[in-house]
Amino acid sequence: MLSIDAARFLGRLAALAEIGRDGQGRRTRLAASDADRAGRDLVTGWMREAGLDVRVDRIGNLIGLWDPSGTGSGPVMMGSHIDTVIDAGAYDGCTGVLAGLAVIEALRAAGDVPTRPLALAAFTNEEGVRYAPDMLGSLVYAGGLSVEAALATVGTDGTVLGEELARIGYAGSEAPGTLRPHAYLELHVEQGPVLEREGVAIGAVEDLQGISWQEVTIEGAANHAGTTPMDLRRDAGVAAALLVAWLRERAGAGNGRSVATVGRLRLEPDAINVIPARAVLTIDLRDPDAGRLAAFEADLRQRLDGLARRENVTVTVRRLARFDPVTFDSGIVRRIEAAARARGLSVRRMTSGAGHDAQMMARLCPAAMIFVPSIGGISHSPAERTADADLVAGAAVMLDVVRDLCGT
Amino acid sequence: MLSIDAARFLGRLAALAEIGRDGQGRRTRLAASDADRAGRDLVTGWMREAGLDVRVDRIGNLIGLWDPSGTGSGPVMMGSHIDTVIDAGAYDGCTGVLAGLAVIEALRAAGDVPTRPLALAAFTNEEGVRYAPDMLGSLVYAGGLSVEAALATVGTDGTVLGEELARIGYAGSEAPGTLRPHAYLELHVEQGPVLEREGVAIGAVEDLQGISWQEVTIEGAANHAGTTPMDLRRDAGVAAALLVAWLRERAGAGNGRSVATVGRLRLEPDAINVIPARAVLTIDLRDPDAGRLAAFEADLRQRLDGLARRENVTVTVRRLARFDPVTFDSGIVRRIEAAARARGLSVRRMTSGAGHDAQMMARLCPAAMIFVPSIGGISHSPAERTADADLVAGAAVMLDVVRDLCGT
Repeated sequence: MLSIDAARFLGRLAALAEIGRDGQGRRTRLAASDADRAGRDLVTGWMREAGLDVRVDRIGNLIGLWDPSGTGSGPVMMGSHIDTVIDAGAYDGCTGVLAGLAVIEALRAAGDVPTRPLALAAFTNEEGVRYAPDMLGSLVYAGGLSVEAALATVGTDGTVLGEELARIGYAGSEAPGTLRPHAYLELHVEQGPVLEREGVAIGAVEDLQGISWQEVTIEGAANHAGTTPMDLRRDAGVAAALLVAWLRERAGAGNGRSVATVGRLRLEPDAINVIPARAVLTIDLRDPDAGRLAAFEADLRQRLDGLARRENVTVTVRRLARFDPVTFDSGIVRRIEAAARARGLSVRRMTSGAGHDAQMMARLCPAAMIFVPSIGGISHSPAERTADADLVAGAAVMLDVVRDLCGT
Repeated sequence: MLSIDAARFLGRLAALAEIGRDGQGRRTRLAASDADRAGRDLVTGWMREAGLDVRVDRIGNLIGLWDPSGTGSGPVMMGSHIDTVIDAGAYDGCTGVLAGLAVIEALRAAGDVPTRPLALAAFTNEEGVRYAPDMLGSLVYAGGLSVEAALATVGTDGTVLGEELARIGYAGSEAPGTLRPHAYLELHVEQGPVLEREGVAIGAVEDLQGISWQEVTIEGAANHAGTTPMDLRRDAGVAAALLVAWLRERAGAGNGRSVATVGRLRLEPDAINVIPARAVLTIDLRDPDAGRLAAFEADLRQRLDGLARRENVTVTVRRLARFDPVTFDSGIVRRIEAAARARGLSVRRMTSGAGHDAQMMARLCPAAMIFVPSIGGISHSPAERTADADLVAGAAVMLDVVRDLCGT
């Protein structure tokens, strides 16, 4: 049984985690930022050391190829992302990219000559914090969004993605998707509490919940905080608050599978003694069932109409992103279960609560994901952690499945 | 009967209104900003043209003195402010300062030699948008806050008031309050709907509602928007929303005299797919009755304790400002009523819903205010308007009352 170089894998994970501290000392490597450039430079160097042919496509996806038998056939691709949220953890995304690199190095070290090429991808803007939608790089790679439209995306900071990619030197020339994979595998931290709670080492991810992202703008009327009677107000902030409260209630009311989050909320003019004239907020809805997700969205539309009437405000909605739930390839899921058992690791099938590049790649080829436990289920926070042994176990399972898929 | 130079008064009001457009073209002259400097330069020039001895005190209050009989006794002071909120109207504050100037010019033009000096004040940071508390300049003038503490105030933009006053050249040397007034009069737009609704020209303001400003910080836990079940969340944004909704309900539940406003609300990390770890919001509570205001504050404290328990968040409260309701001088209020009637103007006694410099000056000397109608009751908005005839009528009433008070 082959094994990966655990020390090198974990060492690289720790080194990459140190890249991109912002002014407040937070780990923040937003897509196409200077910090992202520094992370990309580091990972590109490691890919080259591993003997990969590294190319960058037009949307900035980093692709490393190893084709020892020179067949030029569809590669078995592993991948994830290295961009982060604001004040992020060290494992989200980076685990999958660096484990993929460790897998290729293990095969080379073992003298394996796979009949199929192997590829490793680090996709652009998976988090979607700076540019919407999230998983943008893999979406473009899978043909779900045109390169032109993606490059023209304007970020939350007013920047244009295409200009920022060029600025940091990662606007490549290759058409995204040129390399059509035979299969795609992604190792990721669970970012949820299930595996740890059940004491299971490996998650064989068989599906992924649908995601709906919308931006809601509420327009009321600015007025004096002292002289305007409560019943004469058109307070956009109060309307936004009632919406946030309703979303929590509506999500909780379901069978516990629907989740709703308002992560961004801005008031204007943002003055202590002025009634807010305008509120802009984002709504993140997710559910593994397509029907339930659509029903939640329909209820939300109704709620917004009622809110506009009752609060005497105008409401406009902008769709930022929407992805239906995804079912992964059952064959690969079975191989993951088998590989875990063969190594004596506990394993369970599960649903991904988060969006991942794998859901986009599943449009192109058979795909699946491997999860490892997140301590306390914490993610998108500096407190995000996964035990070293679990990280190494996940990479080892990916090694076996990849070997199986590329036929050595 | 004397009259003011209406054309010059209205012309200056229009000219001052053009000072301080921000990047988005909004009228924004925040205290001690470059825009405020431009406004101060303009007004100082007009004061000098009017023959006033202009001095600036340590907190940046502009004081113009006219002492024709050289008695050096306590002056009859008129005043208000020229700083604004963000995206402000043209009348709030500026009306009182420029009407005061017009009154002094009318007396000079008439060859009056008042036995008491006349003074005109433009107080620093009345709005309190950039620095808390509001009415800071007049508060310091009245001895309610030490100059040192006031100068050390840190603004919402991280600046220090003392440094900004020095930067714009309006950090004077005179101790605030050196000139102790015999009486204080302030003309102001109502900023509310009462006078217009009742078709009354002049408001004789007999009292002013109390104000309580607090900043609430709610700390929860950042976590992944997709993988964290609703019942396991510690969402600071949801807690803030529930608080805003409660404040609206609690204020509306009263006899309609209590008002509550959340004008600022910030979420962190402010990312679409991350549960807010932190929410910072401001609460503005007002009521003309001291007991009701205190009861509202007590209910709020209780509510925050319950919120912290139920939502599993920590809540900290910072008091930004608090002023009890103020009762103005009944003698001056009667003089205002008499002067209005003598000019054939309809007049009514009323309560001020907003905070004004007059409430601070009332600590030093007999004080009262004259209100003129606000069209649609709109204020703190570019749509703020008062008819020219009402502005001129208000200034004329102030002229008569001042003449009466300074004994010509």
